Order: sequence, then C-alpha cells, then structure tokens
Amino acid sequence: MKRFEDLSPSLRSIMTPGPVEVDPRVLRAMSYPVLGQFDPQFTGIMNETMSMLRELFATRNTWAYPVDGTSRSGIEAVMVSLIAPGDRVLIPIYGRFGHLLHEIADRCGAEVHVLERPWGGVFAPEDILAEIRRVKPQIVAMVHGETSTGRLQPLEGIGAACREVGALLIVDAVATIGGVPVDTDRLLLDAVVGGTQKCLSVPAGMAPITYNDRAERKLLSRKRVERGLRTDAGLEEDVAPVRSNYFDLGMLQDYWSPLRLNHHTEMTSMLYALREGLRLVLEEGLEARFARHRLHESALMQGLSAMGLTLYGDPTCKMPMVTCVNVPEGVDGEAVRKLLLESFGIEIASSFGPLKGLIWRIGTMGYSCRADNVLRLLGALEAALLRQGFRVPAGQAVQAALDVYERPEV
Amino acid sequence: MKRFEDLSPSLRSIMTPGPVEVDPRVLRAMSYPVLGQFDPQFTGIMNETMSMLRELFATRNTWAYPVDGTSRSGIEAVMVSLIAPGDRVLIPIYGRFGHLLHEIADRCGAEVHVLERPWGGVFAPEDILAEIRRVKPQIVAMVHGETSTGRLQPLEGIGAACREVGALLIVDAVATIGGVPVDTDRLLLDAVVGGTQKCLSVPAGMAPITYNDRAERKLLSRKRVERGLRTDAGLEEDVAPVRSNYFDLGMLQDYWSPLRLNHHTEMTSMLYALREGLRLVLEEGLEARFARHRLHESALMQGLSAMGLTLYGDPTCKMPMVTCVNVPEGVDGEAVRKLLLESFGIEIASSFGPLKGLIWRIGTMGYSCRADNVLRLLGALEAALLRQGFRVPAGQAVQAALDVYERPEV
Repeated sequence: MKRFEDLSPSLRSIMTPGPVEVDPRVLRAMSYPVLGQFDPQFTGIMNETMSMLRELFATRNTWAYPVDGTSRSGIEAVMVSLIAPGDRVLIPIYGRFGHLLHEIADRCGAEVHVLERPWGGVFAPEDILAEIRRVKPQIVAMVHGETSTGRLQPLEGIGAACREVGALLIVDAVATIGGVPVDTDRLLLDAVVGGTQKCLSVPAGMAPITYNDRAERKLLSRKRVERGLRTDAGLEEDVAPVRSNYFDLGMLQDYWSPLRLNHHTEMTSMLYALREGLRLVLEEGLEARFARHRLHESALMQGLSAMGLTLYGDPTCKMPMVTCVNVPEGVDGEAVRKLLLESFGIEIASSFGPLKGLIWRIGTMGYSCRADNVLRLLGALEAALLRQGFRVPAGQAVQAALDVYERPEV
Repeated sequence: MKRFEDLSPSLRSIMTPGPVEVDPRVLRAMSYPVLGQFDPQFTGIMNETMSMLRELFATRNTWAYPVDGTSRSGIEAVMVSLIAPGDRVLIPIYGRFGHLLHEIADRCGAEVHVLERPWGGVFAPEDILAEIRRVKPQIVAMVHGETSTGRLQPLEGIGAACREVGALLIVDAVATIGGVPVDTDRLLLDAVVGGTQKCLSVPAGMAPITYNDRAERKLLSRKRVERGLRTDAGLEEDVAPVRSNYFDLGMLQDYWSPLRLNHHTEMTSMLYALREGLRLVLEEGLEARFARHRLHESALMQGLSAMGLTLYGDPTCKMPMVTCVNVPEGVDGEAVRKLLLESFGIEIASSFGPLKGLIWRIGTMGYSCRADNVLRLLGALEAALLRQGFRVPAGQAVQAALDVYERPEV
C-alpha cells in the first residue's frame, strides 16, 4: 500500500540566485511542534519577528511583518494595497523583475509609465529623478537588485524626489535584503519587500515587508473590515477598496497589531523558520554579513577570471550575490549545468528572456555563500568545461580563489 | 548579543477548528535540506504531490496542486481566476466563511447575489437549486463545512443544477477535506479548495486546489504570459485578464505542468510537509480516516452530554470534526479557555460575530483527533467548570467517552 517512498532529497550545493541552502538551525526550527495562532506564546513569536525585521530593514517603521506567500506575494500585497485603480505608476525597468512590477501594476488597474533601458546595466539616478518630475506619479516602483541580470540599482535621491511630487516609493529588495544594505529610513523608501529564500537563507514561503506612515495613510484610506467580522452592519460600501482580501495590508496589519483581528491563519512553521533565520542574521551582524557576501564574490570572480571566463554586464553595478558569466562560444551551457547538478550535486542557474542560454547565473547568497561552495563550484565548472573540449588553464581557478581567502585581512 | 532566545514552543493539545497538531513525520519532513525549484528531484516531488491530491479530492482532474499561501489564498486564487469583473456570482451564506466568499467576490468585481439563512443550520439543497435557476449565475460559490458554526452543507444536486444554467461551482472544502468525503467528480464540483492546517494536519501555508476542464476553459480564455517572459512581443493586450499575478491559475498551471514556466519560487519545505501529510492520509485510507473522525466526535459528544452541556446548532447537519458547545449561563467562557490553555496546555476556540462569547468550538481534526486528546479535554473542561462554580456530575464525562472507546466494533 506504500506507493510513495519516504522523502529523501539529495544534499545539494545550491548556487543559484535563489532558492538557496538553508542553515540547519532554520531547518530544525521548522521541525518543532506547532502552536495555535492566538496562543500567547505564538503571538509573542510574531512580535519578536517584527522587531527583528525592523533591524533587518534598518527602519523605525511600526509595520514590518511577513506576508504569507512567496516573495512575489509580498510585492503584490504592497502594490495592490497602495495602487488604487487609475493611479499613475512609474516603473523603471532594467531586467525581468521590473517587467513583473509592470505586470502587477497593470493588473491593479494602474496607468503605468515605463522607463526602460537595455539589460546589463542600471539607471543613473538623475534619469529616474527627471522622469519622476515629468510624470508626477502617485507611485514609483522599482527593483533594487535584478537577479535576471545581476545588477544593483543605486537608490540615492529617489525617495526625496518622490516626496517632492507626493509619490510613494515601493522597492523590491527580494534579492538584496540581508546581502547588501537596504536602508529603508535613510533612503526614504515608503515600502520595501524582502525575500526569504535568497540572502536570508530561509525556505521560500514568506515575504517580509515594511512600510512607513505615508504608506499607511494610503492603506487606511482604502480600508474596510471583513464581512462576517463587522459588527456595525450600517457602514457598507467604501471608495476603491483594495481588490484583494488576502493581500489587503490594512487587514494584515490589524492581525499583526495587538488587535489580532482574525484574517488568515498564520503559517506557524514558516514563521519559526523566519524567526530563526533573522536571529542568525542579527547574530552574524548586518555589516559582517555584507562583508562576507563581498568576500566570496571576490573569490568567485578571481576564479572565473583565472579560468578565462568573462562576466556579463556593467561591472560598476554588479550585485555581490549574483555573478553572471558569459557562456563561452561553442559550449553548451545547459549540458554544463546538467553535469554540475547530476555529477557534482551543484546547481547554478540559466537566465530568462533575451539572456536565455547566453549566461550562467551563479549565486553566493546567505548560507550558500561559503568558501567550500565557491571552491567546489570552481573545480567542478573547470571539469565540466574541459569535458566539453573548452581549453581551460587547469587548476588555476581554485588556486586564484584560495589566494583571495588566504589574503591577509586589511 | 543574543537578545532573542532559542525557539522553545510548549507542547499543546490543539483542539480548535484549526490550526491543529502536526504529525511528527510531517515535522520531520520539513527539517530536510531543500532542493532547487527546477531540480528534477524537486519537480518529481511536485508531480507526486499532484497525484496524491487527485486521490484526496476523489477526482480525475488534470489539475490538482497547492496554491502557495494559507487556505484563503486558495479560495482567492480560484475566485479571482474564475470570476471576471461583472460576472453574476451566487453565494449561499450560513456562517462567517460564506461572508468571506462574498467579500472576495466583491473585490473581484462580481455582481454578487446572496442567499442567506440564520447561523446554526444549512440550506435544503432544493432552496439553492431554485435560486440557481432564478439568478442564472456564471459562478456559484459555497462553503462545504462552516467552522464558525460547525455545520456541514450537503452538496447533492447542486453541481447538476449549475450545469443546467452554465454556471461553475466553486466549493470551499478547507475544513472538510480529509475529514469527510469531498467527492469532486461525483458531485460535479468544478473547483474545490482544501486546507492543510485542519484535517490534513499539515502546518498552515499551502492551499491544495483542484479544478476540471470546464473551469480550465474559463481560465484559459483569460490567460496571458507574464511580461519579461513573453517572447512574442507583438501580442500585448487581452480581454479581462485576471486581476492578480500571484493567484492567476493559468500561470500556476504552467508552472505545475511539464512546461515548468517560471512563476513564483515553490515553497520547498511546505511542499515536503504537504507530501508527507498526504502520504499519511493515503496510508490510513480515506474511509478509515473519515470513520476515525466520527468515532472521536461520538466520544466527545457523549462526554459533553454526561457533563450536562448542550450543543449549539442543528444536529442533523453537524460537522464531525467541529463540536460547538453552548457556554452555560453564569460561566465565563474566556476564563475557561484561558485555564485550559495555561494550566492544561489544551487549546479550544471561541467564535466570531453573532456567536462571539456564546459558544466554544472544539475541533477533533486530523492528528489532533485522538482518544488521548478527547479524554484529557473532557477531564480538564470538567475541572475548569467546577472551578467556576458550575455544577458538573464529577467524573462522568471521561467515563462516558471511555464507554464509547470500549464499545465493541459493530
């Protein structure tokens, strides 16, 4: 009668731009027995998680909590709650995930204005500032780190320009949170969305968000209490209510507030995981964590270069946690990925749309961002390239990376 | 520097209508290292889960997969994908979660027709049939088991009536799936949503759904490929696209199909949990599991009755896995719940809206549905009532339940 076998996933080195490996402490937290959602022990865990999220987002915002879904659920929750149908929304696009913001804004009924540039670089902030002053949008939504191209968009000055025209600034920091600074308050970001399965090294399943009083004012103007929970049956219809119940941040914040107004059933085990993941981040320290991401990026890049490989994209705006490598001419990129996975247990990623088949994307994120992973990958990639007949100066990549790791600290 | 303590949740007997206790095998599955989302081992796990979900839903549907969010995310995904703005939607309401369907349909831009009856009972199917023929809706959406009142709505004949008028029938089986039969194909249900944290005893975090060809045709008519993934840049605008990206079932099914078109990052650890939870359900056998839920309901009811307590609602349509008890006059229901939780480690629920403070809701669901839980609760509830000065025939409740358990099988 036992037709499905015991679960027995292989152990992998996951060097993609997410999902990545999970710290064993986080895995252990998920194996703890569950609590009821209104159990005071559980609401205590909710509050602790909010407190740690504020540190992660470098903010004094009241509101910092996870949306219960994968990263894009957090993006959609923020957008559908802040964008009223007909709102002018400006979206600077420099890769695939900018298109996703466009897509979601469309579905929210926004009047979308797009500022687009070729993949592989980012915008000069002044180009975005000029467009904000020209379009005068209600909302500006943009990606902080584009994993599709491995580029990091500087955000300096954009928040201030948004305030000039009364716009709210939404930032998708799914790939950057926990890996590079995301200074919510200093940069005047009105709403920020992080991801769990990248630099936080928690399994996919929650999307931490934060937003400030400016964003909250807009939420509250669109708020209503759920049918079946309302006690004042008189007040029925409101203006432009949020088009989603699940993603209505006005309702979510009532659930995360001392009111504890029932909405969804909080994901117990995922919250245990997020809490433990955040504890690990704060124990390491944000600055030390950012430095670790830069160190392993440097070792990886030196190794790739020693192998004679070239990197894709503008080096001045490279994300430290994603390294995009041009697939050399004559090499079958997918065959290399297959060999890495099947024979070495190492996963790297391909890319999307115009870059499909042209680059590999190597992630050094969170718990996966370790010397053993970088060294094993370089050795395995060299072997895979030699296997395809590509001429590689054998042995040098690993040596170059070891040189970085053995370099005395400055 | 360690400001947040190690996680150490207390062990609880969770006897609410969800979330409930999780089988240790499921907890263990969540502690396994993660795989990448396109790793063939992982897509194999996705396929196995779909196969087990078809058995759970008693269907031959192609599509049976989880939506990545808590139960109401599954409801919203089905509704926002199947309800085009302006569609006539008929919603029979007999408790809180019917109001939730109304709420979500409103936000989908539906023209909602409500058929409402007082809480505590269900509809005679012929009343629903007559309303379907009168309203001729595009969609009928209804709750199978109302945990707010503990009532089970018979579904016989409703699917056939929907086909007469060309309507799609959406059923919220969040609370019933795995506890009583949910015969998707036999009852001609076009789309069904289940819950994980109730009779499946998997933590909250996924919402298994299934839908048939009739539902899929409507999805496909509203479909478009995501911006940033489209290769044929020519085709841009479509008719009434789904208002959500995260919940667009047309996209989700492409991700769950052999196409594996990238959408969200599947929740690895939650999928491990769901797979193990389904394996436990199928190993026990659906019929045996339904019988187990009836057995413990019977023991619980006999015990409550021996204590002199009365049950809320129409007994002819009681859900086996939720028992609603009238809080006796002079007893402080919340003080009883507090004592049960704090001194006995047992959680039971209160209720919502018009029933707030008037009833306790006791769940016997999934892994929580066990003799030890029922016996402990009866003893503890007796003690709590005595503590409040309520006269209880001491000792008899537990004896009455033991009588049920020791009764020879027929």
